[in-house]
Amino acid sequence: MGAEIREECGVFGIYAPGQDVAKLTYWGLFALQHRGQESAGIAVSDGREIKLHKGMGMVAEVFSEEKLNELSGFIASGHVRYSTTGGSVPLNAQPLVFNYKQGSIALGHNGNLANVAELKKNLLARGAIFQTTTDSEVIINVIAQYAQTDLVEGILKAMVDLKGAYSLVIMTETQLIGVRDPWGFRPLVLGQFKGGYVLASESAALDTIGAELIRDVEPGEIVVIDMDGLKSFKFMQGIKPSFCIFEYIYFARPDSIINGYHVNTVRRKMGQVLAKEYPVEADLVVPVPDSGTAAARGYAEASGIPLEEGLMKNRYAGRTFIRPSQKEREIGVRLKLNPIREVLKGKKIVVIDDSVVRGTTSKQIIELLKEAGAREIHLLLSSPPFIRSCYYGIDISNEDELIAAKLNLEETKNYLGADGLYYLSLEGLLGIFKNRDFCLACFNGDYPVPIT
Amino acid sequence: MGAEIREECGVFGIYAPGQDVAKLTYWGLFALQHRGQESAGIAVSDGREIKLHKGMGMVAEVFSEEKLNELSGFIASGHVRYSTTGGSVPLNAQPLVFNYKQGSIALGHNGNLANVAELKKNLLARGAIFQTTTDSEVIINVIAQYAQTDLVEGILKAMVDLKGAYSLVIMTETQLIGVRDPWGFRPLVLGQFKGGYVLASESAALDTIGAELIRDVEPGEIVVIDMDGLKSFKFMQGIKPSFCIFEYIYFARPDSIINGYHVNTVRRKMGQVLAKEYPVEADLVVPVPDSGTAAARGYAEASGIPLEEGLMKNRYAGRTFIRPSQKEREIGVRLKLNPIREVLKGKKIVVIDDSVVRGTTSKQIIELLKEAGAREIHLLLSSPPFIRSCYYGIDISNEDELIAAKLNLEETKNYLGADGLYYLSLEGLLGIFKNRDFCLACFNGDYPVPIT
Amino acid sequence: MGAEIREECGVFGIYAPGQDVAKLTYWGLFALQHRGQESAGIAVSDGREIKLHKGMGMVAEVFSEEKLNELSGFIASGHVRYSTTGGSVPLNAQPLVFNYKQGSIALGHNGNLANVAELKKNLLARGAIFQTTTDSEVIINVIAQYAQTDLVEGILKAMVDLKGAYSLVIMTETQLIGVRDPWGFRPLVLGQFKGGYVLASESAALDTIGAELIRDVEPGEIVVIDMDGLKSFKFMQGIKPSFCIFEYIYFARPDSIINGYHVNTVRRKMGQVLAKEYPVEADLVVPVPDSGTAAARGYAEASGIPLEEGLMKNRYAGRTFIRPSQKEREIGVRLKLNPIREVLKGKKIVVIDDSVVRGTTSKQIIELLKEAGAREIHLLLSSPPFIRSCYYGIDISNEDELIAAKLNLEETKNYLGADGLYYLSLEGLLGIFKNRDFCLACFNGDYPVPIT
Amino acid sequence: MGAEIREECGVFGIYAPGQDVAKLTYWGLFALQHRGQESAGIAVSDGREIKLHKGMGMVAEVFSEEKLNELSGFIASGHVRYSTTGGSVPLNAQPLVFNYKQGSIALGHNGNLANVAELKKNLLARGAIFQTTTDSEVIINVIAQYAQTDLVEGILKAMVDLKGAYSLVIMTETQLIGVRDPWGFRPLVLGQFKGGYVLASESAALDTIGAELIRDVEPGEIVVIDMDGLKSFKFMQGIKPSFCIFEYIYFARPDSIINGYHVNTVRRKMGQVLAKEYPVEADLVVPVPDSGTAAARGYAEASGIPLEEGLMKNRYAGRTFIRPSQKEREIGVRLKLNPIREVLKGKKIVVIDDSVVRGTTSKQIIELLKEAGAREIHLLLSSPPFIRSCYYGIDISNEDELIAAKLNLEETKNYLGADGLYYLSLEGLLGIFKNRDFCLACFNGDYPVPIT
Repeated sequence: MGAEIREECGVFGIYAPGQDVAKLTYWGLFALQHRGQESAGIAVSDGREIKLHKGMGMVAEVFSEEKLNELSGFIASGHVRYSTTGGSVPLNAQPLVFNYKQGSIALGHNGNLANVAELKKNLLARGAIFQTTTDSEVIINVIAQYAQTDLVEGILKAMVDLKGAYSLVIMTETQLIGVRDPWGFRPLVLGQFKGGYVLASESAALDTIGAELIRDVEPGEIVVIDMDGLKSFKFMQGIKPSFCIFEYIYFARPDSIINGYHVNTVRRKMGQVLAKEYPVEADLVVPVPDSGTAAARGYAEASGIPLEEGLMKNRYAGRTFIRPSQKEREIGVRLKLNPIREVLKGKKIVVIDDSVVRGTTSKQIIELLKEAGAREIHLLLSSPPFIRSCYYGIDISNEDELIAAKLNLEETKNYLGADGLYYLSLEGLLGIFKNRDFCLACFNGDYPVPIT
Repeated sequence: MGAEIREECGVFGIYAPGQDVAKLTYWGLFALQHRGQESAGIAVSDGREIKLHKGMGMVAEVFSEEKLNELSGFIASGHVRYSTTGGSVPLNAQPLVFNYKQGSIALGHNGNLANVAELKKNLLARGAIFQTTTDSEVIINVIAQYAQTDLVEGILKAMVDLKGAYSLVIMTETQLIGVRDPWGFRPLVLGQFKGGYVLASESAALDTIGAELIRDVEPGEIVVIDMDGLKSFKFMQGIKPSFCIFEYIYFARPDSIINGYHVNTVRRKMGQVLAKEYPVEADLVVPVPDSGTAAARGYAEASGIPLEEGLMKNRYAGRTFIRPSQKEREIGVRLKLNPIREVLKGKKIVVIDDSVVRGTTSKQIIELLKEAGAREIHLLLSSPPFIRSCYYGIDISNEDELIAAKLNLEETKNYLGADGLYYLSLEGLLGIFKNRDFCLACFNGDYPVPIT
Repeated sequence: MGAEIREECGVFGIYAPGQDVAKLTYWGLFALQHRGQESAGIAVSDGREIKLHKGMGMVAEVFSEEKLNELSGFIASGHVRYSTTGGSVPLNAQPLVFNYKQGSIALGHNGNLANVAELKKNLLARGAIFQTTTDSEVIINVIAQYAQTDLVEGILKAMVDLKGAYSLVIMTETQLIGVRDPWGFRPLVLGQFKGGYVLASESAALDTIGAELIRDVEPGEIVVIDMDGLKSFKFMQGIKPSFCIFEYIYFARPDSIINGYHVNTVRRKMGQVLAKEYPVEADLVVPVPDSGTAAARGYAEASGIPLEEGLMKNRYAGRTFIRPSQKEREIGVRLKLNPIREVLKGKKIVVIDDSVVRGTTSKQIIELLKEAGAREIHLLLSSPPFIRSCYYGIDISNEDELIAAKLNLEETKNYLGADGLYYLSLEGLLGIFKNRDFCLACFNGDYPVPIT
Repeated sequence: MGAEIREECGVFGIYAPGQDVAKLTYWGLFALQHRGQESAGIAVSDGREIKLHKGMGMVAEVFSEEKLNELSGFIASGHVRYSTTGGSVPLNAQPLVFNYKQGSIALGHNGNLANVAELKKNLLARGAIFQTTTDSEVIINVIAQYAQTDLVEGILKAMVDLKGAYSLVIMTETQLIGVRDPWGFRPLVLGQFKGGYVLASESAALDTIGAELIRDVEPGEIVVIDMDGLKSFKFMQGIKPSFCIFEYIYFARPDSIINGYHVNTVRRKMGQVLAKEYPVEADLVVPVPDSGTAAARGYAEASGIPLEEGLMKNRYAGRTFIRPSQKEREIGVRLKLNPIREVLKGKKIVVIDDSVVRGTTSKQIIELLKEAGAREIHLLLSSPPFIRSCYYGIDISNEDELIAAKLNLEETKNYLGADGLYYLSLEGLLGIFKNRDFCLACFNGDYPVPIT
C-alpha cells in the first residue's frame, strides 16, 4: 500500500506584485497537502520585512482568513511537512526564517541530505548551534557560511557541499529563489502567473491557482526571481539525473505533469504493462482505491477484463487518529475500505495496488476480500518489490520491515494469503519512459549519493 | 452537483454487553460522516446512568481516545448532524439527553417533521418550553406527554401525531429503540453484532464494525432491544411508503444496501438508462468525481464510449472554509477539480453528474472543461430536474434558487454553456426498481405529507 | 477558610438604549467574577430577538471582543456560575434561553430552591422534560406553566410555588425583570445608568460601569424595566426576611454595599468585636490574606496590637488546577501563602481568618506559621462555628465534614495545633447590625424554609 | 504605577535526583509568575537527553499534569517571560534548547545585553544565523563559539564579551549551571532542597517548594551543580555591583529576600522615610493596592495618620484583555480599582503608590478619588522620579513618555490633578540600605554599562 509510504514535504513560492500572495500560497499548499499533513507554514515579504505564520496540522487548520490577512506582501513561500526524523514538533515546522549577514531568509525544503552528519560536525566545530534536528537547519547554516557578500554565490558554493536531495524555495526580503539538487531527486516546477512567477513541488498547485506551467526547474539549477525578472544559474557537475520514480508510482497527484509526463497516464500505462507481463485469467479487475485506481484501469483496458469497484473507500478515511483496540482488531482496514459482497462473491479477481511495503495492510485487504466471497485473488503491484530504504526524502519502513527484503515471492504470497502475487518488472516500469534518469535505489540498492 | 445538497443527519445505536460500545459507535459515526459534518455526539448507558459527550465538528474532532474511555456502558447511541434550521450552534447537537417521568432518554433524529409548527403550538399552550429550534426537541416533548407509564406505548401514541420524516434512535438506561416514520422517508437498518444489535442510517456503518445486516427497519416500525432480546411493534396506518429516492441518487454511501438495493449498482444502472435515453455521440465519457463516477461507468459500459478521468479531484477538497476572494474568482472550483488538458483537448465529451441545483457549480465546471480544450460538452444528469424543495430532511436550495424551476431546458443549457443538457427521466429512474414506493416530491411536487 | 466555601452565582442585567449593553454586562460580570468562576454567559436583546453566548471558564476566557460585538441590542443579562450539583457541564451554564408561549426568555439565577424535588415531580407528571439538573430549569418551567397570557402575572403565581433562594434576572425581547425571593436570601441591587437601569448581585458591579446604586431589590419584589420605565410589584406573604449573613462574612466584595452596610466596614467591626470578646495578649496580629484582612485590621485597632503581614499571598494563587503529589505534600498551602520568618520568629501571634470549615487548611497554615518560628498561635475567626449545611445557594461541605459539627472547641484547637481558638459569638456578630433579619441556619440550624 | 513597568523574565533551576523535578519547577515558576506572564517553559534532563515543553501564556495555561508527567528526569530548568522586543511569539519562549559541539544545552535568561548589536554583528560575520531577535540566542552563540572543549571555560570566556544584565540558568544533560553578570543587575539566588540544589530569580520560589535559601549567587559568579556537588567559579573584573533597585521598589515579591533584605520590610521603610521627608497633614493614608500597600503601612506608622482602604482592588484585574471603548472611557481604571465613598468623602488624604511612569493611570486614580468625595489629595511615591529608560531588563516606557522627563514637579502635579505630589528622595531611598551598590540609571542616568 502506498499509504504506508510517506512523502516528506511540499514547497511553494510565488513572486507576484499586486496579488494576494499569502492566499495564493494557501491555495497552492492546499493543492500540495498530500505531500505533508503534519505542519504547514507561510512566510511573506513586503520588500522590507518577512512575516511568518506556521503551526502543526493541515493547511486548513493552521491558517484562518484573519491570519492570512496579516501576511501582506508580494513574495510568499509556503511549506507542508511530514517528518520521520526529529519528531513531530512545532520547532521543525517550515519555512524556517532566520537572519544572516545580508538580512532575512525564509527556507522551505523537500528532501533529505545524505551527508548531513558530516556537514553538521564541521559546523559544530565552527561554533554553530542547532535548535532543530532537521537537515534544513544544516542547509541554512552552510549557505550562511558562504553568503557573506552575495546570496546566490553562497548558494552555489553550498551546493558543492550538499549531497543528497534538496528542492528548495528560498525567499529574501526582495527575491524568490528556487533550487534543485544536481540529481534532481525531488520535483520542482516553475510557472507563470499574472506577470509573476510561481515555484511548486508539483504542477497541480499551479493549476489550482490558475498559473501556467513553464517547465521543471532542472537538476542543479538555481532560478532567481526579483524585480528584474527571472535569472537562471546552473550548477554543473556532470551528475546523472536521478529523479525519484516513486513520485510517478504513488506520491505525486495524478493530475500533475512531471518532466513532461502526465502522472495519471503513466500510472495507467503501468497497468497496461502489468497486463502484458501477467495476463491473469480472471472475472474482474478490482482496484485498491485510490492508490491502485489508475493502474487497474490500464490493466482492464489491456486485458479486456471488466473493472469493478469491489472495494469502496470511506472518503473520510485518514481523519481519525484513534486506533481500533485489540478487541476491535477485525475493524482494522474496514474503516478505510469496504468490500462489496455483491460484486465479489464467487469471483476470480485481479486486485491492483501500487506497492507492498510491510505487507500488513495487503494481508488485511485480502482477508476482507475473501470474507466477502472472492473465490480467487491475484494481487498485482504496479511497482517492483521494495527491498531497500530511501535516504532522499521518503519515509519507507526500515529495511528489516520490508516484506520483500525478508521473504521471497512464494513466501510473501503465502503470508498475504493471495492466490497469485505479481510485481511490475523494473524493465517494464522503465519502458514507459523515454530515458532512464531515475533513482531506483529502493528497488535495486543503487544509491546515486553515498550515505555517510 | 450533489455537493450543493445536504443530508441533515445520521443515526447509530448499539446494544452489546461486553463490548466497548462507545468506540464502536465512534467507528459507526465515522462511517456515517457523509450524512452530517457539523456536530457529533455519543451517549452511553451502563444500565443506571446515561453519559453524553457531543460537540461541533467532525467525529474525529469531537472525540478523543480519552473522551471515549469515559463513556463506559453496554448501550450507546450516536449522531452526526448537518443543519439548515436553527443555526449551527452547540445546543442543537445530538443526541439530546433529557429526563422525563420514567427516567432518562437519549434521542438522535434524522428527518424533518412537516407539522412541527402545529405540534409546538399545542405544547406551548400546555406550558412547555423549548431551548432549541430543532424538530427533535418537539418529538421528545410529544413522547414525554404520552409516556407517563410506558415508553413504547408513549412512542406509539406520539407516532399518531408526528407527521413527516423521522428515523429515530432512542436509548434509555436499559433499552435501545429504533423508530421509523410510517412513510419511511429516511433509511434505518438493523444489524447483528456479537450477540447484540445495531441500528444505523446505512448498512455501510454495520460493515465498518463487522456487524451483519439483518434488514431495514420497516416504515412505521418500532424495534425495542433490551436484555430480553428484540421486540418489534408496528404502527399500522395504511400509509404508502415514500422512501427518499435521493438517497440512491446522491446521499447514501455507494457501498450501502438500502431496501435490498446496492447503491453503487443502482447508480451504475442510472448511467446505463441515461445511455439508452440519450445516446450522445462523443469521444469520451468524463465523470464529475465523485458524485458522477458510478453513473459515468454505467454510461460508458452501455454506450461503448471510453471513460476517461478528465477531471481530477483534490482529495482534501472540503476541508477549507476559506473562500477565494473576488480577485481570485477564477480559482473557484479549481480547488476541488482539476481538468486534464491532455485528456480533454479537442474532444467531444459526455460529462456525467448526479444533479444540477442552482447551476453555479455546473457552469464553472463547463468553463473549466472548455478552457482545457474540450470541443463539445454534453452534460448528462443521473436525476430528473429539481423543481421543488424538500421538507423531509434534505437541504436543497429554496425553490426560487433551483435553476430547473426558473429556466426551461434550453435556457438552462445556454446558461450553463453546455452543448447539450439531458436529465434522466423519472420513468427511467423508477424503472430501475421493482416498486414505486418513493417520495418524488422534489421532482414532481407530490408531497406525501402536507406541510403545515 | 472562606476559600473552602463557594458562592454559587452572580447575576447582572442592564436596560440601556444607545449603550453597548453586551460590553457593559461583560464589565459587570468581571466585577462579579468572585461569585462564580466555572461558566459565564451573556444574552442580549435588540427588541426582536435574543442572542446568547456562554461557555465554561472565567468571563475573560469565554468572551472575546469579537463575540461581544456580535451581541448587539439594548437589553442584556449576564451570569457567572459555580455549581455543586449537576456537575460542571456546558449545558448548565446560564443564562438559560428558552421559548415559551409568549416568546423568548433569558434567565439567570442565584440561589437554590428548597422544594425543587416536589416541583419537578409535579412538572414531570405533566409531561415536562429536563435537559439539566439545575433548579433554574425548574423555575423556568413553573413560570412557563403560569405565564400563558402575561409574564409578570406568571412570575407572581410562580413565586407562590417556589420555596427557597432565588435572585433572578429575567430578560424578554423587550423587558428586563429582577426578581428576589420573599426571604431575600441572596442579594440583588438596582442601579441607574445613563437613562437606563441596572440589576446586579452586588453594588460593586454598578461602581465598575459607573452606574449609581438606587437601592436593594426588596425581598418578594419584582421590578420590571421597559420602554415605559420601571414598575415594581411586590409579593406579600408576611415572610420575615432572612438575608444570608455569610455574604458579609466572606462572599461579597469588600467594596459592595448591601442593605446599606458597607461590607468592608462590617468586616472590620467583626474584628473589633472579636477584640472585645477575646482580648488575647500577643505581639502581633497576622491576617490570613485576603479573607481575614479587614477583620484583622479591626482587631489591631481595637486591641492596640500591631498588625503585621506575616503571611504573603501569591497573587496568582487559584490559577492552577495541578495539585501537589503525595511526595510534595509539604508544598500544600505554600503555593498560596508564604510565611515571613523575619516577622514571625519568636512571636506570640493572633491569626485572624473568616471561618473554619473542614479545618484542613487552617491546620496547614498553623503548621507553616510554626515552622516559620511563631512561638504562640491564637486563631480567631470572624464568624461563629459552622455546624450545619446550607441549602440556599452556598456550597459548604457536607455536615459530616464540618469540623465544628464533629469536634468540640478543645478538640478542634488540638486538631489544628493552635494555642488558642476563638469564634466570634453569634450575638457579637448580630450586634453589628441594626436588625436581625438574617438566615443563620449554618450556625444554629434554624432553616427559614424547610427542605423537602 | 508600577503596573506600567514590566519585568522581563524569571528563571528557575533544580538538580534533585529522586525528585519530580518538572513538577517542582512548575511550582517554582508559579511562584515567579509575576516576573513574566507571556510565555512559560520547562526543560528536563534525565542524564542522557533534554526534553522541553514551552508555550505562550501563564504557567498554568502552558502546562497540564500530563505534559509535566512526560518531563521525567533529575535536572530541570524553567522560565517565565515577558518581552518588549521581538514581539510576543512562540519562537521566543524559553528555555532555548540547542545542540552545540559538546551536546545539548537549555538556557533561560533574565536581563538584557547592552552590547548585543556589536556581538551579533561579529557572529553574523562568522556565518552565524539567528532565528529569534532575543539577546538570549546571541548569548548561546557566544558561549558555543568558546565552548569547544569545556562548557564552564566557554562561559567564563563569554562573560568577558557579554556586557549588560544576564542572570542565566543553564542546563546540560548532566549539569545545572547558574550565571550572574559581574554587575549583578538582576537577582539570582541559590537554595538547598533534599540533598539537591535550586536556583531561582527570587527566594519566594524556594519557599514555595520548601527549599532553603543558602545565599545570592554573587555578581560575576558561576555555580556548577552536578553529581560531584556544587562548585563555584568567580569572574573577577573589579566591577562595582549595580543591583537593580527597582526590584525592591516594585518588582520582587514582598516575601522575597534579596541581598539579605526582606523586600516587604524595605518597602515599609520607604513609607517611613517618606513620612519623615514629607509630613503631610491629612485625615487618612490610602494605599494604591497592591503596589503602594507596604509603603502606605510605613507612612501610617511613622506619621500616626490612620491607614484606610479607600481603594478596593478587583482581584481578577489583569485577566481581561478587552479594553473599554471610547464610549466607555469612564470605566477605565474602575475595572481594577473601586473608590470607597464612605471612607473618602470629605477627607484630606495621602495616597501612596510606588511610582509614576506616564502619569495616565495616576491621573485616573486621582479623578476617581475626587468623584468619590476626597477633599484634598496628596500623591506620595515611594521612588524618585523616573527620568531615563532602562536597558538592563525592565520595560519602562520610552524616555519621551516618562512624565517626569517632560514636566517639572509643579506641572506634573497639575497634570495629575493632585493637591500635592512628593517623590521619595534618592538619598532617602539609599539610606535604607547599608551600601550603595545599585543601578540607579532610571533615576539619574548613570548607566553602569554603556549602551552600544
